[in-house]
Amino acid sequence: MEEEGRKKITVIGSGNWGSAISLIIGNNTNNYKDIFESQVRMWVHEELIDGRKLTEIINTKHENIKYLPGKKLPDNVIAIADLLAACHDADILVFVIPHQFVENVCKQLKGQLKKNVLAVSLIKGFLIERTDGTVKLITEKIQEILGISTAVLMGANLASEVANNQFCEATLGCKQFKNQWPMLKKLFESDTFRINLTEDANTVELCGVLKNVVACAAGFADGLGYGYNTKAAIIRLGFIEIILFVELFYRGSDIRTFFESCGIADLIATCNGGRNRKICEAFIKTNKTVRELEIELLNGQRVEGPPTAEAICVILKKRNMLMRFPLFAAVDEIFRQKLPPQLLATRLRECKGFLPNYWINTNIQ
Amino acid sequence: MEEEGRKKITVIGSGNWGSAISLIIGNNTNNYKDIFESQVRMWVHEELIDGRKLTEIINTKHENIKYLPGKKLPDNVIAIADLLAACHDADILVFVIPHQFVENVCKQLKGQLKKNVLAVSLIKGFLIERTDGTVKLITEKIQEILGISTAVLMGANLASEVANNQFCEATLGCKQFKNQWPMLKKLFESDTFRINLTEDANTVELCGVLKNVVACAAGFADGLGYGYNTKAAIIRLGFIEIILFVELFYRGSDIRTFFESCGIADLIATCNGGRNRKICEAFIKTNKTVRELEIELLNGQRVEGPPTAEAICVILKKRNMLMRFPLFAAVDEIFRQKLPPQLLATRLRECKGFLPNYWINTNIQ
Repeated sequence: MEEEGRKKITVIGSGNWGSAISLIIGNNTNNYKDIFESQVRMWVHEELIDGRKLTEIINTKHENIKYLPGKKLPDNVIAIADLLAACHDADILVFVIPHQFVENVCKQLKGQLKKNVLAVSLIKGFLIERTDGTVKLITEKIQEILGISTAVLMGANLASEVANNQFCEATLGCKQFKNQWPMLKKLFESDTFRINLTEDANTVELCGVLKNVVACAAGFADGLGYGYNTKAAIIRLGFIEIILFVELFYRGSDIRTFFESCGIADLIATCNGGRNRKICEAFIKTNKTVRELEIELLNGQRVEGPPTAEAICVILKKRNMLMRFPLFAAVDEIFRQKLPPQLLATRLRECKGFLPNYWINTNIQ
Repeated sequence: MEEEGRKKITVIGSGNWGSAISLIIGNNTNNYKDIFESQVRMWVHEELIDGRKLTEIINTKHENIKYLPGKKLPDNVIAIADLLAACHDADILVFVIPHQFVENVCKQLKGQLKKNVLAVSLIKGFLIERTDGTVKLITEKIQEILGISTAVLMGANLASEVANNQFCEATLGCKQFKNQWPMLKKLFESDTFRINLTEDANTVELCGVLKNVVACAAGFADGLGYGYNTKAAIIRLGFIEIILFVELFYRGSDIRTFFESCGIADLIATCNGGRNRKICEAFIKTNKTVRELEIELLNGQRVEGPPTAEAICVILKKRNMLMRFPLFAAVDEIFRQKLPPQLLATRLRECKGFLPNYWINTNIQ
C-alpha cells in the first residue's frame, strides 16, 4: 500500500452489510480528508428494481432501497456496476460479498490492481477444504489469487442494527502493517462502532466462520422448546469446540482473541438474533428443507451454517477427530437426518466441556 | 466429613431453586443408596398457605405449591420447619437461601453440627465489604461462623427449566477434599444436569455474584430498545470486567473457570432470561423504583444486581480503581440516578474491552 497520498477505498459488495459498512466508511472518508479520498466506490452486482438499475437508484436516492431500505448513504458513496472500474486504482478493497462469489471476483481482478493494495475481508464465509485435509480461509483464497495482503473485520454486527447506530464492536485482524493500524481504525470506527485490532487474524476469521455452526444448534434448541439454560450451555460448549478447532488447524492463537467481539460477542449475537438460528428453529418446527426455508424466510439468501457444518465434519472425519467435536457433529447429522433432533441434548452430554490441560494451564499472574 | 457410613443430606432452603435442587438430590440419594441416606431433609421457612402449613403440604402432596408449583418432589424429600432438627446430624448441608438470611441461620447452627460436615452453597449472593476494603464471599461468611468447609455450586440454572429437565450444566467449586469429588458429583448430577468440578471455588462464586451487575446493564439496553449487537457487547465487556475484578480481589484464578458454566454460560443465561434483566428493562421503561418493580413483577422477591453494583463500586472507589470498571460504575450510577440511562452507550465506549498484557500473554502451546 502506498505510504503517500490519500487512500482510495472501494467496497466490493452492496448487500445488507456492505451497505451498512459503506455508510460508516463514507462518513469516515469525509471526516478524515487528509488520509482518505472522500469518494468511496461501492461495487454493485447490477440488478433491476421496478425497471430501474440499482446503481442508478443508489446514486440518485442515496439509498440502497433493496438491501438497506430506509437508511441514507452519504453522498460520497458512489455505486458502480463495473468491477474493474470500481477497483483498479483502489488502495483498500473491502470485500463484503457472499463467499461463493469470491473466487470469480478475484479472478476478474487478477493483474488489474494497484501495487500494494490492501484487502479487508468482512466475509463470514466458510472453509474450503484442501486436498490434504486442512482448511482454507477466504482470506487465504484472496491472497492466493491476487497476491495481496488481506485483513479481516468480524464481530457482533447484525447489519441493520449497525446502520441504526446501535452501539457495537468489531475486531480487525491484521497480521502485518502495524504502522497502518491507526489508518484502518479511522476507516472503520465510529462513535457507535468500536474497533479493536489484533495481529491474530486467523483466529478472528475462524471465529466468524464457526459461530454459524453453533448458532444452528441454538436454533434447534429454540425449535425444541428449550429455554435459557440449554441455550447458554450450547453457546458455552460450542465456544469450546471453536477454540479447540482453531487450535487444531491454526496453532498459535492468542487466547485473548476469543474474548474479543469476533469471538464470544459475535457468537452470542448470532445464537440469539442471527439467521442461522432462525432457519434452524423453523427446520425443527416444520417439515421443510433448509432451502425451502431460505426461500420462505430469507428471500432466498443462503445461510452458512449447514454447509460449514458439513465441510468441517468432512475434514474432522478425515483426520479421525470428529469424536472430539460432538456438537459440530450433531449439527451436521441433524441436517442430514442422521440424528433425530430430540437427541441433541444427549449429544451435548458427550461434549468435553472444558479446555484440556495441554491447552492452557496458566494461572493469572 | 465422615469417610464411613452413608451421608445424610439437608437442603437449607425451599424456594424455587431450593425445591428444584431437592428434586435432583432426592432422586440421586435414592439411586445411590450405598453412598447416601435416602431421606433428604429440606428446611422450610414455615408459612401458611390458605391456612395450611407449607411443610405439611410438601410432606403430603410432595409438591412445593408456592415456589415450584406443578413439580412432584420425590417422596424421600421431607420438609422440616425446625432448623436444628433438620441439620444437626447432616453430613452435607446444601445452602440455598437468600443471602440476607445466611448470617442468622449460621448463628443458629453454630456448635450444633456434626464434626466434619461439608457445606455446599448455591447462594448467588453478594459481597460483604470488609473494613479493609476487600470483599467477603458468602462461603467465607459460612466458614467464619461455622468453621466448616464450604464448596459452591453455580451455573446457568434458571430453576424452573432445571425442574423441567431441560439440559444444562453447573460448576462445583471445591477447594479441598478431592477424594470427595466423585461423591459430590453423584449427589448433584443428573442426565440433564451436568456437573464439572474445579478447585477454583472463589472464581466460581464471584462469577455468580458479579454476573447480576452485567445483567442489569443488559436489562437497561433492552429497556432502551437496543438489539442483539449491543447486548452482546455488554455481555463481552461485562465478562472482561468480571475477570479483572476477580483478579484484583482473588489472585490466582484459573482462566478455564471463566469458560465453565458458572462463567460465560451463567452470564449469558442471566442477561437473556434472568430477573435482574427483567427488572432493569422495566426500570427504564417506567418511572418506578426497583422496589416497586420487585413487588409488581417478582412478588416482592429481591434482585441482587442493584445492591451488588453499589457494594462493589464502594469497594472499588475506596481503592481508587473505579475508573477501570466503567460498566459496573454505569450500572450503579443509573440506579442512583447519577447517570441518564441514555448515556449507557457512551460509557460502554470507555470500557477497555480487552484483557491487559500483564493478565495473560500466553499463546496456545
